[in-house]
Amino acid sequence: MLKTLLMTGAAGGVGTALRPMLRELAETVVLSDMADISDVQPHEQFKRCDLSDARGVDDLLEGVDGVIHLGGISVERPFDLIVQGNVVGMYNLYEAARRHSRPRVIFASSNHVVGFYRRDERLDNQVVPRPDSLYGVSKVFGEAIASLYFDKFGIETLSVRIGSCFAKPANPRMLATWLSSRDMLSLCARAFAAPRIGHTVVYGASDNEEQWWDNGNAAFLGWRPKDSSEQWRAEILASLGPEDPANPATLYQGGGFVCGEHPANL
Amino acid sequence: MLKTLLMTGAAGGVGTALRPMLRELAETVVLSDMADISDVQPHEQFKRCDLSDARGVDDLLEGVDGVIHLGGISVERPFDLIVQGNVVGMYNLYEAARRHSRPRVIFASSNHVVGFYRRDERLDNQVVPRPDSLYGVSKVFGEAIASLYFDKFGIETLSVRIGSCFAKPANPRMLATWLSSRDMLSLCARAFAAPRIGHTVVYGASDNEEQWWDNGNAAFLGWRPKDSSEQWRAEILASLGPEDPANPATLYQGGGFVCGEHPANL
Amino acid sequence: MLKTLLMTGAAGGVGTALRPMLRELAETVVLSDMADISDVQPHEQFKRCDLSDARGVDDLLEGVDGVIHLGGISVERPFDLIVQGNVVGMYNLYEAARRHSRPRVIFASSNHVVGFYRRDERLDNQVVPRPDSLYGVSKVFGEAIASLYFDKFGIETLSVRIGSCFAKPANPRMLATWLSSRDMLSLCARAFAAPRIGHTVVYGASDNEEQWWDNGNAAFLGWRPKDSSEQWRAEILASLGPEDPANPATLYQGGGFVCGEHPANL
Amino acid sequence: MLKTLLMTGAAGGVGTALRPMLRELAETVVLSDMADISDVQPHEQFKRCDLSDARGVDDLLEGVDGVIHLGGISVERPFDLIVQGNVVGMYNLYEAARRHSRPRVIFASSNHVVGFYRRDERLDNQVVPRPDSLYGVSKVFGEAIASLYFDKFGIETLSVRIGSCFAKPANPRMLATWLSSRDMLSLCARAFAAPRIGHTVVYGASDNEEQWWDNGNAAFLGWRPKDSSEQWRAEILASLGPEDPANPATLYQGGGFVCGEHPANL
Amino acid sequence: MLKTLLMTGAAGGVGTALRPMLRELAETVVLSDMADISDVQPHEQFKRCDLSDARGVDDLLEGVDGVIHLGGISVERPFDLIVQGNVVGMYNLYEAARRHSRPRVIFASSNHVVGFYRRDERLDNQVVPRPDSLYGVSKVFGEAIASLYFDKFGIETLSVRIGSCFAKPANPRMLATWLSSRDMLSLCARAFAAPRIGHTVVYGASDNEEQWWDNGNAAFLGWRPKDSSEQWRAEILASLGPEDPANPATLYQGGGFVCGEHPANL
Amino acid sequence: MLKTLLMTGAAGGVGTALRPMLRELAETVVLSDMADISDVQPHEQFKRCDLSDARGVDDLLEGVDGVIHLGGISVERPFDLIVQGNVVGMYNLYEAARRHSRPRVIFASSNHVVGFYRRDERLDNQVVPRPDSLYGVSKVFGEAIASLYFDKFGIETLSVRIGSCFAKPANPRMLATWLSSRDMLSLCARAFAAPRIGHTVVYGASDNEEQWWDNGNAAFLGWRPKDSSEQWRAEILASLGPEDPANPATLYQGGGFVCGEHPANL
Repeated sequence: MLKTLLMTGAAGGVGTALRPMLRELAETVVLSDMADISDVQPHEQFKRCDLSDARGVDDLLEGVDGVIHLGGISVERPFDLIVQGNVVGMYNLYEAARRHSRPRVIFASSNHVVGFYRRDERLDNQVVPRPDSLYGVSKVFGEAIASLYFDKFGIETLSVRIGSCFAKPANPRMLATWLSSRDMLSLCARAFAAPRIGHTVVYGASDNEEQWWDNGNAAFLGWRPKDSSEQWRAEILASLGPEDPANPATLYQGGGFVCGEHPANL
Repeated sequence: MLKTLLMTGAAGGVGTALRPMLRELAETVVLSDMADISDVQPHEQFKRCDLSDARGVDDLLEGVDGVIHLGGISVERPFDLIVQGNVVGMYNLYEAARRHSRPRVIFASSNHVVGFYRRDERLDNQVVPRPDSLYGVSKVFGEAIASLYFDKFGIETLSVRIGSCFAKPANPRMLATWLSSRDMLSLCARAFAAPRIGHTVVYGASDNEEQWWDNGNAAFLGWRPKDSSEQWRAEILASLGPEDPANPATLYQGGGFVCGEHPANL
Repeated sequence: MLKTLLMTGAAGGVGTALRPMLRELAETVVLSDMADISDVQPHEQFKRCDLSDARGVDDLLEGVDGVIHLGGISVERPFDLIVQGNVVGMYNLYEAARRHSRPRVIFASSNHVVGFYRRDERLDNQVVPRPDSLYGVSKVFGEAIASLYFDKFGIETLSVRIGSCFAKPANPRMLATWLSSRDMLSLCARAFAAPRIGHTVVYGASDNEEQWWDNGNAAFLGWRPKDSSEQWRAEILASLGPEDPANPATLYQGGGFVCGEHPANL
Repeated sequence: MLKTLLMTGAAGGVGTALRPMLRELAETVVLSDMADISDVQPHEQFKRCDLSDARGVDDLLEGVDGVIHLGGISVERPFDLIVQGNVVGMYNLYEAARRHSRPRVIFASSNHVVGFYRRDERLDNQVVPRPDSLYGVSKVFGEAIASLYFDKFGIETLSVRIGSCFAKPANPRMLATWLSSRDMLSLCARAFAAPRIGHTVVYGASDNEEQWWDNGNAAFLGWRPKDSSEQWRAEILASLGPEDPANPATLYQGGGFVCGEHPANL
Repeated sequence: MLKTLLMTGAAGGVGTALRPMLRELAETVVLSDMADISDVQPHEQFKRCDLSDARGVDDLLEGVDGVIHLGGISVERPFDLIVQGNVVGMYNLYEAARRHSRPRVIFASSNHVVGFYRRDERLDNQVVPRPDSLYGVSKVFGEAIASLYFDKFGIETLSVRIGSCFAKPANPRMLATWLSSRDMLSLCARAFAAPRIGHTVVYGASDNEEQWWDNGNAAFLGWRPKDSSEQWRAEILASLGPEDPANPATLYQGGGFVCGEHPANL
Repeated sequence: MLKTLLMTGAAGGVGTALRPMLRELAETVVLSDMADISDVQPHEQFKRCDLSDARGVDDLLEGVDGVIHLGGISVERPFDLIVQGNVVGMYNLYEAARRHSRPRVIFASSNHVVGFYRRDERLDNQVVPRPDSLYGVSKVFGEAIASLYFDKFGIETLSVRIGSCFAKPANPRMLATWLSSRDMLSLCARAFAAPRIGHTVVYGASDNEEQWWDNGNAAFLGWRPKDSSEQWRAEILASLGPEDPANPATLYQGGGFVCGEHPANL
């Protein structure tokens, strides 16, 4: 069990869903975000921080022995925002970790790192990145930082290519990509408990019937997701109908990210 | 044959070596750099440009039907410089290419993308990146941008993971990594002549006796390097002696990049 | 749900077993065979047809939006019969599909496409064919037609290399190859529901304890067979005893097909 | 050295080019074709034969200890012609070989077996067929017959996926696919001399600069082509100009076969 | 069911655990060991034997139709002992099997054959051996003998790379490597029942949550372990605490074997 | 350049051929064998030694900074001889190396480690051993000792799976397996000069036309053999004729070793 866990991006969707369960992982939880968090619990602390502020990030890492790094931009946005949040912010976090006690990090990477593979291709964690957006490119950058800081400075990271971490799947694509917050938590627990993880990439999807990803190379973690999207299949297909096979968003794993407007227009 | 070829970073070492031979590739050559170039030839034009200046880069791409992109930072330096030259600069270049006529690009990536693989591992162009420096991480980012702009916007790129492109090899490691400028030129020629290249990664080394890299997946280019480092082996070993096997710089492909000072101190 | 499903070979063993369940897939089911079918149900139509008759096959495809193609020769027979049923018949079917509305096809291929692999080899859908009979060769031809008509004309096919689709397994080999009709039906359902299948090969075996085949490359279908041959293991071994390991029929996946009489004598 | 070599399709282009060199392989050469051959040499015999005539083919194999099987249809044609020449004809040949002394066969397969792979994919002899035409499908059938007759009856075959066997390359695509008749002959010589070949597939291309195919799995043959298309590159590019990258014939290995008229119209 | 099963090393830990269940496999069980066994049951016989005594071993094989070979040295010991028990003893056993009726053998190989692979590497049965001890080297020798005696003399062997076969796991490493005796028995049962096994290597671990090994290539056996170490996880972690990640025994699969004293000192 | 090189088995065929060239590698050469060597040169010393004598072997290693280990049994012989020469002798050599200054070792392994692979299989250095003789099994043991002593004690070894190292090839098989002594010497030179070799396996064959082995994974050594067996092809085939394809010695890489008399009879 950790003494002090830092979770960045704690006010976002995934962070909010994980918060009530983090007591299972750590005695004290430091929450960080650019946005405010008001309902801080006794075992929690809140520190507002912009990840592009190197000094502020350095303060965050003080006394921390584990990090869940959800912060930064999480969808396609103009490139300036992505550089500040996901390029400079990622560097600041790892530099701070290096100067402090080199805690283990769980990095929220994304399936959009590989979004331009087709759905009928099965991917393991050794495939070459094929991002579907500037957002996806920034996550490729993040994984490369994590790789470097392990090989050069010994900081261990689990890069989780999260599928769709919401309360329930919202469309046919998410029947394959959905990740329950409970399964995300058990993955974090395994990553902190394993004796050695180096830099490992894992895909974050629950035990759904339809599967695009193969976590065999991370089997040493012993993670077995328990939830499944199957209970919502009928409801989703009834309300949305089948997918249009002529739409690139149906052909590729990244869904709508592959054909969205150009980010300069967003 | 191209009508107008743009070469960024034209005042650097590789650019200077290539310049006299570019007439074989294009009628007109636009040279760009932050530094001045004074000996401009009749078939050349010079445009000074900082790659982090989006408007300036946009001007560069006007009327261009081929790009050799050597510009940016080429060694380990403080992170701010790398972000401006290799992250923002790369994005600016591809955005300008997208707005203009989407010319084919040869991107000077680097062997430091995979510098933390050991020398007794043989790498093809499908291995997962394992960078040895922030500089190497920025080249991972660059290849991801190239991948995205092909999949999404149809701009084709040859990413060349250049070994050591100097007049001659300078140490035992370069007996394996040396790339002559003549072989670099013939690679560029093949890349512009091939009917379709998508986004392809190739390792840039001459026909040296010692080989770490396998370009089999890019064999469709029909590139066959002609030069070899072998003629300098005796001279190098005589003057420098054998490598120290206990030094990480000897164990890993990245050489000294794997164990240099932290970039914040450079 | 389909409007009009065509099932060829409807009077055969697999067709007869599937018929009562096809209402789950389609509003109307067109049954076709060279032999008569007398107990036609309200939602069914019967059209007698010889697959080597191009005009007759063309009529079959009128108004059809899905095909289960079981027709043709299903065991080793003289070559003339195989050419008419499985070579000319296959071509006629795909030509008719091309001229009409290019419905998706489920093609009953066979494990005898790979019958000369040994039982201790584990096969995925990328192995080179190794047929055990002229019948198996004709199914290699069929899969090649399906591949061509997708790449060239956009007709999608699931080629199912059916193991042994009977009410129950009849010998020790079938403990591995048995496919229940219920699992065959759920596979058809998945194939019609998936947004895009291109030309995909899948092995048709239930969730038996002994497995020779790996459907990992078709995992995107989300098909999970539910039945198992295990309940009959004791009964089969008690009545037939162990297999003779010196018999080629025990060594190879194709069983008795590998050592049968020459087809010219059948 | 063989005593009696049979070459089918001897009046066609490849056969005519090989004829003057066959004395190096055999004492007597039996030539067969549907068309006449008038300039028969002292060491040659001519036997007119339609391959779809089983009895005629049986006569051809009398006393033969080696076969070069070039006969049948060699381009996209209506399906009836292909069935007679390449399906029934192939079966007749192997049945005759089985009834006589099971001579080793060199089978003229074709690159059109894999014509729907892209040019930037490198293929070895274990890839799944992806034919580009009914003609290509018939060659998939032929290779499957060869596989079966080795596994079941011990007849050994070298299936040569011939690229473009002409006097010289005629377009940019053939710079990669060209096979000189001299290299084809040396391949035949190796195949007859090797102690054991089972059923092996090999790609037939000369030592061209541009290569799409990897014969590594057939390296045991020790075949090394000597000729190269490179001498015609400048001439071809000058007269035809570069290929149109937007044309599927440029994208895929099969060239124009992938986009020709439907065979029913030919 | 076997008539007469020989189990060597019957007085050791694994042998003692298996003994009460062997009635399920054979009518008569011959037990052998250098140590005495006093509680011999009606269906059992005991024959004391030193495996380095060729004549004694030859007597053991008389009338035997199945062997479970557990005998020899099972931990790191001085080299002389290992040569007598695991090199000479292994040869004596297979020579005796060859002279008698060539019964099928289950050979107790060991995970220490691959102990110098890291825990975050997933191994199948085709990896090159990487032993962690002289004991491990002797098991590499044993598997090579088994390979030879199948290829040359037709004796079939299942080489089981046993993890940790104890009543329950004793430390965090064994949460991954534990093999229950019940699962070991079902593996033996499958190996004797399968129609053909040649020489196959399988890893012996129960259905534990954490998995380092992939038995996919032995899936034809149909073995599915039923027990799991998970019930002891909390108890083990509570009493022993987490593993020290800086200890080579934590990094490598072989655990303490990789860093023990030199055997000459044991 | 080495100061003192030890070569065991110096009186054998390979040793005798290498001796005159060893001055290129070392100042002083210590020769060892059970047999006498009388023509000792000024830069050579001779020490008679039986490898099964641990004390004698320990004396051999005194002051040595490189070893070429050719000693032991080199063909199929009774098992007792093989145990003494190749099992105990190998252990004695590595123990002596460990106690002294851990010199780098070139170990004469053998192609008979993989002799039961077929000639039409292409092997790299990661294939699972498949020995063809007790002699081959003993070389599997030797490679495992070398692997252990690198992983555990840091002694580096190049295990050379020597093909046929004679003055010239003597039969058709040796056209593929022949290794000239000059190429063996250049391989030794590369192995002593490379900065780091760990434990690497390489196949020892000259640049013959027919190749069964792939040294790609050892390309970092930069070894390129120069000689070829081709000049003797005609002579060998003329005097011996073609190989009998029905003979297992023709089918398998090990040649006659796969079907020799049982060693107990030799």
